[in-house]
Amino acid sequence: MPPKALTPAQAIRLLRSLRAVRRYRDDPIPAGALQDILEAARWCGSAKNTQPWQFMVVRERSTLEALSKCGPYLDYMKHATLGIAILIEGEGRGNSFDAGRVAQNIMLAAHAHGIGSCNGTINPDENEPVALRLLGVPDGYSLRVLIGLGYPESGDTVDPVSGPPPRSVLPSMGRKPLAELVSYERFGRREPVE
Amino acid sequence: MPPKALTPAQAIRLLRSLRAVRRYRDDPIPAGALQDILEAARWCGSAKNTQPWQFMVVRERSTLEALSKCGPYLDYMKHATLGIAILIEGEGRGNSFDAGRVAQNIMLAAHAHGIGSCNGTINPDENEPVALRLLGVPDGYSLRVLIGLGYPESGDTVDPVSGPPPRSVLPSMGRKPLAELVSYERFGRREPVE
Repeated sequence: MPPKALTPAQAIRLLRSLRAVRRYRDDPIPAGALQDILEAARWCGSAKNTQPWQFMVVRERSTLEALSKCGPYLDYMKHATLGIAILIEGEGRGNSFDAGRVAQNIMLAAHAHGIGSCNGTINPDENEPVALRLLGVPDGYSLRVLIGLGYPESGDTVDPVSGPPPRSVLPSMGRKPLAELVSYERFGRREPVE
Repeated sequence: MPPKALTPAQAIRLLRSLRAVRRYRDDPIPAGALQDILEAARWCGSAKNTQPWQFMVVRERSTLEALSKCGPYLDYMKHATLGIAILIEGEGRGNSFDAGRVAQNIMLAAHAHGIGSCNGTINPDENEPVALRLLGVPDGYSLRVLIGLGYPESGDTVDPVSGPPPRSVLPSMGRKPLAELVSYERFGRREPVE
């Protein structure tokens, strides 16, 4: 039986409530949830539908720990239940627009399952060959984006299914108001032109 | 009343069924749907929550037509009911990972409302100042990503709410199988390690 209709409001709530989660419980990620996450990645659009990616699933603790040292903000990777590395075909292309699209799909699919995630960047450049070697990646791919996944350790993350609407816990978790972000027709016109 | 719970299956279906739509009906996009689309953009995550973007909403036909000439694959912009230009703070940064994340949120939010979309890139570099000038953008922003939006002209697009599951109409609309896209622990290991 196909899944029942979702309403726009439910979908918007899912999109709005995704937040970075950096601490995870030990509970394993069920195979079905991982399958859904990978399917959401697989079906993501890309320039001319080139699908220029490979997805590497990492559960080995030693590899997750080593990856967490490949950038200044990758600590979450060592806590993650599971990591997904996004390889992009071609060297020097790892941090591209299409990688952002597919990372968003991965994190939203996880979120729909109540699984928290965080993305980060391999940085500086010298760390890229280290990470590629760890994962046994042949020449011809770049790797900049690492996503950590796991059920949230604390209760302060948003549950898109049954929890309350998104609420900022810290000022820095908030967002600018639309009045500062949106222009109509010409830059700085903050109201729609009638 | 808050929206009712959505199931993971409903959410995955939304993520899986997004496809580029390049031809649009004349029907206007309701203010409430645009508001939802912009809210989904506003709440997107970004590196260190810098929210390095501005969103420009364009409905003027002459502007949409001029933007459609700013790249070889932007024809859909001249058909679009409404365009959203994603400005990124800082010059030369327009086609970044975070732009990909927020573009995906915008297109998924539209999709949830049954609104089709397509993204494309301003290209070559010389066209960027042309587009920035058209939109009256001051110095300090880059602009690479243009999204066209509108209700799909034809019936062959996927309806995430009540339509059948995603189906490829053309071979090039399909996707590689997971068996060619996913590795476990080391590149090329196509099965999970037990």
